Amino acid sequence: MEKQKKYVESITARDVDFAQWYTDVVKGAKLCDYTSVKGCLIYEPNGYAIWENIQKNLDKRFKETGVENVYLPMLIPENLLQKEKDHIEGFAPEVAWVTHGGLEKLEERLCIRPTSEVLFCDYWQKTVKSYRDLPKVFNQWNSVLRWEKTTRPFLRSREFLWQEGHTIHASAKEAEERTLMMLNIYKDFVTNDLAIPLIVGKKTESEKFAGAESTYTIEAMMHDGKALQSGTSHFFGSDFAEAFGIKFLNKNNELETVNQTSWGLSTRIIGAIIMVHGDDSGLVLPPHIAPTQVRIIPIAQHKEGVLDKANELLNNLRENSIRVDIDVTDKTPGWKFSEQEMLGIPARIEIGPKDIEKGIVTIVRRDNREKIEIKISELNTKLPELLENIQKNMYNKAKEFLDTHIDSATTMDEMIEKFNNKHGFIKAMWCGSEDCEEQIKAETGGAGSRCIPFEQEHLSDKCVYCGKEAKHMVIWGKSY
Amino acid sequence: MEKQKKYVESITARDVDFAQWYTDVVKGAKLCDYTSVKGCLIYEPNGYAIWENIQKNLDKRFKETGVENVYLPMLIPENLLQKEKDHIEGFAPEVAWVTHGGLEKLEERLCIRPTSEVLFCDYWQKTVKSYRDLPKVFNQWNSVLRWEKTTRPFLRSREFLWQEGHTIHASAKEAEERTLMMLNIYKDFVTNDLAIPLIVGKKTESEKFAGAESTYTIEAMMHDGKALQSGTSHFFGSDFAEAFGIKFLNKNNELETVNQTSWGLSTRIIGAIIMVHGDDSGLVLPPHIAPTQVRIIPIAQHKEGVLDKANELLNNLRENSIRVDIDVTDKTPGWKFSEQEMLGIPARIEIGPKDIEKGIVTIVRRDNREKIEIKISELNTKLPELLENIQKNMYNKAKEFLDTHIDSATTMDEMIEKFNNKHGFIKAMWCGSEDCEEQIKAETGGAGSRCIPFEQEHLSDKCVYCGKEAKHMVIWGKSY
Repeated sequence: MEKQKKYVESITARDVDFAQWYTDVVKGAKLCDYTSVKGCLIYEPNGYAIWENIQKNLDKRFKETGVENVYLPMLIPENLLQKEKDHIEGFAPEVAWVTHGGLEKLEERLCIRPTSEVLFCDYWQKTVKSYRDLPKVFNQWNSVLRWEKTTRPFLRSREFLWQEGHTIHASAKEAEERTLMMLNIYKDFVTNDLAIPLIVGKKTESEKFAGAESTYTIEAMMHDGKALQSGTSHFFGSDFAEAFGIKFLNKNNELETVNQTSWGLSTRIIGAIIMVHGDDSGLVLPPHIAPTQVRIIPIAQHKEGVLDKANELLNNLRENSIRVDIDVTDKTPGWKFSEQEMLGIPARIEIGPKDIEKGIVTIVRRDNREKIEIKISELNTKLPELLENIQKNMYNKAKEFLDTHIDSATTMDEMIEKFNNKHGFIKAMWCGSEDCEEQIKAETGGAGSRCIPFEQEHLSDKCVYCGKEAKHMVIWGKSY
Repeated sequence: MEKQKKYVESITARDVDFAQWYTDVVKGAKLCDYTSVKGCLIYEPNGYAIWENIQKNLDKRFKETGVENVYLPMLIPENLLQKEKDHIEGFAPEVAWVTHGGLEKLEERLCIRPTSEVLFCDYWQKTVKSYRDLPKVFNQWNSVLRWEKTTRPFLRSREFLWQEGHTIHASAKEAEERTLMMLNIYKDFVTNDLAIPLIVGKKTESEKFAGAESTYTIEAMMHDGKALQSGTSHFFGSDFAEAFGIKFLNKNNELETVNQTSWGLSTRIIGAIIMVHGDDSGLVLPPHIAPTQVRIIPIAQHKEGVLDKANELLNNLRENSIRVDIDVTDKTPGWKFSEQEMLGIPARIEIGPKDIEKGIVTIVRRDNREKIEIKISELNTKLPELLENIQKNMYNKAKEFLDTHIDSATTMDEMIEKFNNKHGFIKAMWCGSEDCEEQIKAETGGAGSRCIPFEQEHLSDKCVYCGKEAKHMVIWGKSY
């Protein structure tokens, strides 16, 4: 008799306590662990393997557009960080300082990079001379450190992993095009590989990156209706370049200043995957980035021929480039099922003596729990189709959630009432004043401007707060 | 008329000033650049792309043996670093200390990891309970920091990139097997993919890693006859595990202490590639890890049909998975040839109007400058063969250099005389005493014990220094 003990007897229900559910999933799926340094995580094998797949799929897209990878130092001298005024104001309160090297006190403090704009600028100032040296389209995969006060796994940690792209161009037009090109790559990657629908747009002045001329963003909606800024792309114009003196001789032998961009996507996005797709059984991973796409679970594996057949399937599917593994431990099938579900593996194959007799397997989809019988002889064609189907279904489900959780408002009363009664975003018109933006956030209990979406609608002529002439429709929401 | 101006008019000759030649190659091939923080480098696109290929080829080998990648924090609390006595003694003089986070002074100093043994131990102590949790076979690709006094690009920098593998096992036997398994992976990778012949063996007590029970090493010989330690694998036994209390219940429900290993290979190895294979025209990259394996250089590219045909070749070869690019700039062919040579691209294809007429291209090998005519119709089969041939020839050439630069000695007079007159290593017998080891180093002007090679020879019964009974044959040499 099998004991029906499960891998996880229960986790907190998602709709009862979303924050606790999140922590339970992170722990249950063994994605990361805490360390003795607050806000610094250990990315465990299951969590890091997701990041490796994110890197692989995103890096491929980058390189197709001519991006070159580099690596710059983790330490920044204090004087360098101070060269661009807005930048240092933005980052000074949250950097960690190295004051001693070996047994000696340093003459100048070095901070651990919170981002690397100033290092790239310092390098370019020394190496770029002519229009022939342009553009430079660089990226690095690295870790950065920001001394955050409150931290949560993946969503806000002191050290986190990301990629930061940095480019310089001969013209503002070319730099702006690159800014939007990279935003579109993020959009393509997040919607198609992570199955997360997005709102894409421009940040308001108060929400833009420290030192940028404009910041563009992809915003996703978590299951609790809050927004997660999932990737940003910044156009700097020439502000940094002026501060650092990055000049080049153009074709007419005249000195010009370069135009600059930067763009980043971090391990925060793993938080988005959890909070968009996860359910009361744990993580649900999109097949495109799931480290294991399919797990084979033999039933009555002690019976003759079961393990042989299961291993034959395993090798067969691996040769077909499906990321598949097998659970041959002595745990009960029930335990194995709940572990596979908690880990978010997109599908499992159950195979027992009766199935083998009939020449079939039973596949259970993680996304909707549908059970499907497939002939073993057809697995190599049907399984990749099924995985694509799961990928699409996950996107559609999330898209429906997003669409049904965006409302609109034309008055503050309406807006406050809607934020009080329903999770999600609210579309409303805005005059462009930072005061109105702040007031809206205060009166709605924290719903800030997420972005000015590219897809504008004309809901009214007037700002929802002050009633003056509206300039933009803005997406408002609470956020991580 | 073409001007025959070259990409680099000349670099320092390798045999005139090896150190300056090295610096010239690093600069000429645009591998890395200095920054305003001493000993912290910028890995430029050409340098980082080599590292990406090293990562790819090594990571694949790791994963085939069950290694799982993780990421641990860059910061280590001071008390944690101090838990293992030998370890802190070895590393305390060379770590950088973070004392302030944001605007506040920290209660406890944090060091930037010089290596991550203590972080892994701290994690395992909290998470490993039972024999079912073992083994753990983890690796991370990251950067570490050591506050070195003298620094040189790739060879010795304060911050450097590497992988550090860390494993724990239920038995010492299993841990020792893993230690040697990873050493063999390094050997396989460095000989087959980097075309660098090696001496493989065990470090003496005085040369082993701080805190290890034994350290194994792969040693390579640079063109100036000096050794470069190119990768190490350490067996720790239970010393760290005792210090950190990493215990597990075995199958008989008894408490046991785990056995541990660690192993690392760093961007130093790029220095080895330069100094083993480079020549007076610059870098020479082995085809297995060359970011660009072949560069197409059109001749008389303004003439009708040349660029079309060259681009057709490019696409054709790319489809055949050869890493190929094309130089269509307005530089002269002579300039393009010397640039391709300086960058170490293993082969170039010259294609001009006459070649096209004859249906051939001229290929020039970087390793031996041989010129070969190949029919365009045969390129897809002949070029991969040629690249393999270059790879093997580079290994053979380096192996011959190594073999002809190892001598032996049975007396100190002989040893001193040979080190004075010839570059290279010397094999000599040793009694096992640290005093003799130190004296040999002092009297030979710096030739230390590189390792006790696995392939032992019996040269004499007596220690080359003290004349007492010899225990091992040791490889002696000066080193980076």
